[in-house]
Amino acid sequence: MTNTKFDVLGIGNAIVDIIGRCDDAFLARHGAPKGHMRLVDAETVSRLYKDMGPGVEVSGGSAANTMVGIASFGGRAAFIGKVAEDEFGRIFAHDIRAAGVHFETPLSTSGVPTARCLILVTPDGERTMNTYLGVSPDLNRGEINPELIQSAGIIFLEGYLFDRPEAKDAFRQAAGTAAAAGRKVALSLSDGFCVDRHREEFLDLVKNSVDILIANENEITSLYQVATFEEAMQQAQADTELAVLTRSAQGSVICEKGKEPIVIPAMAADVVDVTGAGDLYAAGFLYGFARGLDLATAGRLGSIAAAEVISHFGARPQKNLAELARTQGLI
Amino acid sequence: MTNTKFDVLGIGNAIVDIIGRCDDAFLARHGAPKGHMRLVDAETVSRLYKDMGPGVEVSGGSAANTMVGIASFGGRAAFIGKVAEDEFGRIFAHDIRAAGVHFETPLSTSGVPTARCLILVTPDGERTMNTYLGVSPDLNRGEINPELIQSAGIIFLEGYLFDRPEAKDAFRQAAGTAAAAGRKVALSLSDGFCVDRHREEFLDLVKNSVDILIANENEITSLYQVATFEEAMQQAQADTELAVLTRSAQGSVICEKGKEPIVIPAMAADVVDVTGAGDLYAAGFLYGFARGLDLATAGRLGSIAAAEVISHFGARPQKNLAELARTQGLI
Repeated sequence: MTNTKFDVLGIGNAIVDIIGRCDDAFLARHGAPKGHMRLVDAETVSRLYKDMGPGVEVSGGSAANTMVGIASFGGRAAFIGKVAEDEFGRIFAHDIRAAGVHFETPLSTSGVPTARCLILVTPDGERTMNTYLGVSPDLNRGEINPELIQSAGIIFLEGYLFDRPEAKDAFRQAAGTAAAAGRKVALSLSDGFCVDRHREEFLDLVKNSVDILIANENEITSLYQVATFEEAMQQAQADTELAVLTRSAQGSVICEKGKEPIVIPAMAADVVDVTGAGDLYAAGFLYGFARGLDLATAGRLGSIAAAEVISHFGARPQKNLAELARTQGLI
Repeated sequence: MTNTKFDVLGIGNAIVDIIGRCDDAFLARHGAPKGHMRLVDAETVSRLYKDMGPGVEVSGGSAANTMVGIASFGGRAAFIGKVAEDEFGRIFAHDIRAAGVHFETPLSTSGVPTARCLILVTPDGERTMNTYLGVSPDLNRGEINPELIQSAGIIFLEGYLFDRPEAKDAFRQAAGTAAAAGRKVALSLSDGFCVDRHREEFLDLVKNSVDILIANENEITSLYQVATFEEAMQQAQADTELAVLTRSAQGSVICEKGKEPIVIPAMAADVVDVTGAGDLYAAGFLYGFARGLDLATAGRLGSIAAAEVISHFGARPQKNLAELARTQGLI
C-alpha cells in the first residue's frame, strides 16, 4: 500500500509469558481448560505459579507476537499495548523493539503490574494459558495515536482485547480511525472461549468493520455456533471480504468473497509447543498481503512462520523468517 | 554417605540469565571477551541490554545450575545464594524450588536488585557472559547455616564467589565447617579469567581445603600457568585427592591421587548453546560420586548431563536426567 510508514500496526495485550511443562493431571487439578486461554486474578496466578515447575520467561502477547513475526519477514510493524514500569514491562519493551517493531506506548506507573501469562505445555505440545492481565487493559483512547493508525496499511486487532471494557473502547476507536483513513482492519478471534464471551459484538464487527478476519476452526465454529468447519466457512465468506481460517495440521483456507476458497497445506514440523502458531500464521499472511503478494503465497508464508514457532518453546520466532521464506522461493 | 540429609549443598551466585543471540562483531564492539564471564556494573549491563536483541529469561548461576542437575538425577540437593525480593528474585527462588532443590536463603530487601547475566550466544554456540552481581555477593556469614552444611555429604563452591570479599569470607567459613564435620569440599574454578584474578588463593584452597577440584582445560592451565593440559593435570593430581578436568568435545579426565587417570569420552550433541556445560558435568559427576558409583560411571553421568544442556538454550536441563541415565544403563 502506498503512503504508509508501517505495513501493519498491531494493538493487543502486552504480556510476558512464563512457560513451563506439566501433565494433564496438573491442568485438571487447577481447573485450567486444556488448549484454551483463561483469565485469572492475581491470587490465582500466584497459586498456580507456586505449584508449577521451573519456567522460562519470554515476551508474548498475541498481536505483539504477530508484529514480531512481520518484522522478522522484513516487514514494517508497529505495536500499541500497555505495560508497567517494572521488570516485566522493561523486558517486554526491550524485546519488541529489539525485534525491530516500533513501540512507543508509555510505560504505566500506576503500580498495577505488567501482564503475565502462565503457559503450561503438556507432553503432546498443546499449550494451556492462564493470563493475569495486570495493567494491560488500562490502554486508553489517548494512547491510540490516530497518526500512527493512519500511517499503517493494515491495523490488526486481537479479540482478547474485548475482555476488558476500557480496551474494547480503544479497539473500536482504532478501527474507526483506520476505516476513515481508508486502511484495512484485520481481526483475530484469539480463542474459542473468548468468542463465547463476546459473540454478538464479534459478529457485528465481522459484518460491519472488519476487512480481514483471522480465526481457527474452533473459533469460527464457535462464532457461528455451527457443527462443521464447512458451514462456518460459508458464513464467514458471506460476512467478510476476506476470511483466513486455520486448521492446525490440516493447513488453512483463504476465503475471498465470491471466489473459490484457496486451500493451503500446513508445513511439517516437530511440534514442541504450539504456543504462537496462530499469531505467526497471521504474521506471514499479513506480511504477504501488505506487500501485495497473491493470497496463496501469503498463506504459505503463514504456514512457514507457524511451523517455525511450534518447533520450539515460546511464541516468537527464533529463526529469521525472511530467510526461511527465501529458501522456499516465496519472496 | 551416611547420616546426610542432602547429597550435595551448593553455594554460589544466584543469577537470572537473559540469553540472546549476537555475532562476533557485537562482542567486539562491546569489548566482551568471547567465551568468558566478565563482571559489569549496572550502567554497562543497561547499555548492553539496550543494544542486544530479544532475550529469553531463565534462572541460572553456576552452582545453582549444578544443584538443579543433581535434583534432576534424583539426588538430594540444597542451595545457598542471595537474591532480592524483586521479580527476578522471585523467579530464581521459584525455579530452584520447583526443580526440587532445597532453598531457604532469605530474599534481601536492601533495594539492591537480583543479579542478572546477559549471555550472548554466537552462531558457533559459544556463550559470552556479562554479569551484574547486584545483591548476590551480599551473602553473609550468618546465612551460611552450619547445620545445613553439616547435613550434606559434599559442599560445592563456585570460584565465582571469590569475586567479592564478603562472599569469599562466607565461602571460607563454609569450607571450614564442612571439613570439621568430615564432609567433602568440592570447588569449581568457574572461569579462566576468574582464576587469573584469584590464582594464589585458589592454589592455597586446592592444596589445603579442597577434596574434589572441578575445572576445564582453560581454567586448570591458567591455575598452574602452564602451556599444556598434561602439565596442568600432573600438578592437579599431585595437589588434590580428586581432580575432575573437562575438555569440551575431548571429554574429561578424572585424576585420583596416585592412580592412573580415567579418560571419559564426551557424548555427541548438536550444540545450540554451551552455557551450563561445565555446571551440568559437575552435576552428573557429583551425583554419581555422592551415591558411591565408581568414578568412571560418575564421569559418564557428567557427560550425559553436559550433552543435554548444550543441545538447547539455557543452562538448566529440560529433560529428566535420571531417565537419560537409565536409558544408558548407568543407574
